Amino acid sequence: MPLAVSLGDPAGIGPEVIAKAWEVRKADAVPPFFAVGDCDSLAAVWNGPVQAIADPSEACGVFKKALPVIRAGGGGPIVPGSPDLDGARTALDSLELAVGLARSGTASGLVTGPVSKAQLYAIGFVHAGQTEFVAERCGVSSDLVAMMLVGPGLRTVPVTVHVALRDVMDALTADRIVAKARVTVRGLQRQFGIEAPRIAVAGLNPHAGEDGALGREEIEVIAPAIARLREEGFDVVGPLAPDTMFHERARAQYDAALCMYHDQALVPLKTLYFDEGVNMTLGLPIVRTSPDHGTAFAIAGKNQAHPGAMIAALKTAAAAARRIGLS
Amino acid sequence: MPLAVSLGDPAGIGPEVIAKAWEVRKADAVPPFFAVGDCDSLAAVWNGPVQAIADPSEACGVFKKALPVIRAGGGGPIVPGSPDLDGARTALDSLELAVGLARSGTASGLVTGPVSKAQLYAIGFVHAGQTEFVAERCGVSSDLVAMMLVGPGLRTVPVTVHVALRDVMDALTADRIVAKARVTVRGLQRQFGIEAPRIAVAGLNPHAGEDGALGREEIEVIAPAIARLREEGFDVVGPLAPDTMFHERARAQYDAALCMYHDQALVPLKTLYFDEGVNMTLGLPIVRTSPDHGTAFAIAGKNQAHPGAMIAALKTAAAAARRIGLS
Repeated sequence: MPLAVSLGDPAGIGPEVIAKAWEVRKADAVPPFFAVGDCDSLAAVWNGPVQAIADPSEACGVFKKALPVIRAGGGGPIVPGSPDLDGARTALDSLELAVGLARSGTASGLVTGPVSKAQLYAIGFVHAGQTEFVAERCGVSSDLVAMMLVGPGLRTVPVTVHVALRDVMDALTADRIVAKARVTVRGLQRQFGIEAPRIAVAGLNPHAGEDGALGREEIEVIAPAIARLREEGFDVVGPLAPDTMFHERARAQYDAALCMYHDQALVPLKTLYFDEGVNMTLGLPIVRTSPDHGTAFAIAGKNQAHPGAMIAALKTAAAAARRIGLS
Repeated sequence: MPLAVSLGDPAGIGPEVIAKAWEVRKADAVPPFFAVGDCDSLAAVWNGPVQAIADPSEACGVFKKALPVIRAGGGGPIVPGSPDLDGARTALDSLELAVGLARSGTASGLVTGPVSKAQLYAIGFVHAGQTEFVAERCGVSSDLVAMMLVGPGLRTVPVTVHVALRDVMDALTADRIVAKARVTVRGLQRQFGIEAPRIAVAGLNPHAGEDGALGREEIEVIAPAIARLREEGFDVVGPLAPDTMFHERARAQYDAALCMYHDQALVPLKTLYFDEGVNMTLGLPIVRTSPDHGTAFAIAGKNQAHPGAMIAALKTAAAAARRIGLS
């Protein structure tokens, strides 16, 4: 079964990296997929073969010789690098249809191209981002999903995500840490085939607080959460000093690092694996990944976008779908 | 001229990594140095040749066949992994003498072995750490020195250091950012020979605050500091999104990253260069480095300590001393 790939904002680099991923399908063993979106956005940046299909069942046959597309959205001229409201509507229509196809079981999983949140908000989109939209369409509260960043040698899950650093301390509760850890453990079991996942929990403060001398969140919030998780039978260590838990030997000791804030999770991942970082949503009934980059409007249409993260997102989604019997 | 190397806590891994650095002096082109401390702490973990010397001028001759030591401290049995107050006194005596030799110009620079802050505090040490002690002995306010972490492909300087994350926001002022940036620029010029250093300033919040949507420190504190630095003629960019500024292509764009808090500076450095990270103090009249690791009491005396960071600290200090004409 093919993956469904929403093209993202038509003026961003989504169409380009998706086309480039199709180009290397043989050399790079890219799993079969079909795009969902507007054919014009591909034509604006790419001369390769595109073939419109009506149903996902046609995708694998077409995939060998052309990039299969299920049409969604469209209308208005497309200028790479210049997003507009028509493009935002196309991005949302594409996402909606791609989610539906993954939910219906005619696609093995969902890979989402990058969208512009600012443009989506301008057309009345009420979700914080694509992840929350997908969760809602899957009937799952967004509190019960987790964002996992996946690189070849590191997986990280931020407990708090798009929160100003000043507000992280209050957003961080033992309940939230426990909830994200549970979703992470189940995701590692289900989508990565790891039977007894080892979770490393980061501290919040320098040196994990040095016994309270440099902050008390480790003592008052993080350690109690870890104790609860251990009572539930999970293999959890921490709170670890954040600066010494991401080097190569340390990474070998755990299957995922649970991080307290956005940059604690994103900085090590992107420092090590900038061109191949994958964002995977755990806790959904479907498989969903996306490349860990944005629309990059500044380089759209210039043939400068690197397809590595999109290719990694496709491979990660296909492998997860196989493991849970969806492909 | 040789470097002066304080052995650090006699029960930590300092003596072991210093002895191991001496062992590879030829293969690894380790610059000549002498140790300052208690010969017994070396004998407790190492069978190699040690020779006591009375004056730094003897060091380079002795260095070829034995590890030269200028004696300081001592007294009481030494048990690797079991720190005690006698050991803390030895560590402090060694540091004091080594600083004095570097200040007097008979050593080309100072490399400090790791100490236990808890043990030092227990004998009445009133400074926050070795850096503040060295600054005071050099007659420099500790506000005017900066800690730079140095790896082969990255240099970072935290503006706030040993501060709970909750307190970082209030500790971060435009004045402090400007002061640390000035020290950083001068240090890069003087100790690294970079004529016009390029400084990248990190944001504090996810995505550098997204125009205020995820925090206002970028707008109210960091950007004004950058504007002042540019007025002074410095080559400064930022505030940059923290998660996308430390990968390989991004690092090629600057000579040092000015970071807003401890882990923002330490996580990328130690993720990439755990076994070779060097801590260099900028803003002093002398050259001072240390390996970017602690006493590691848990592995002391087990022949498991990696000398990479100590060797890197010695080489970084010797190179800096050469540049400023001290060797």
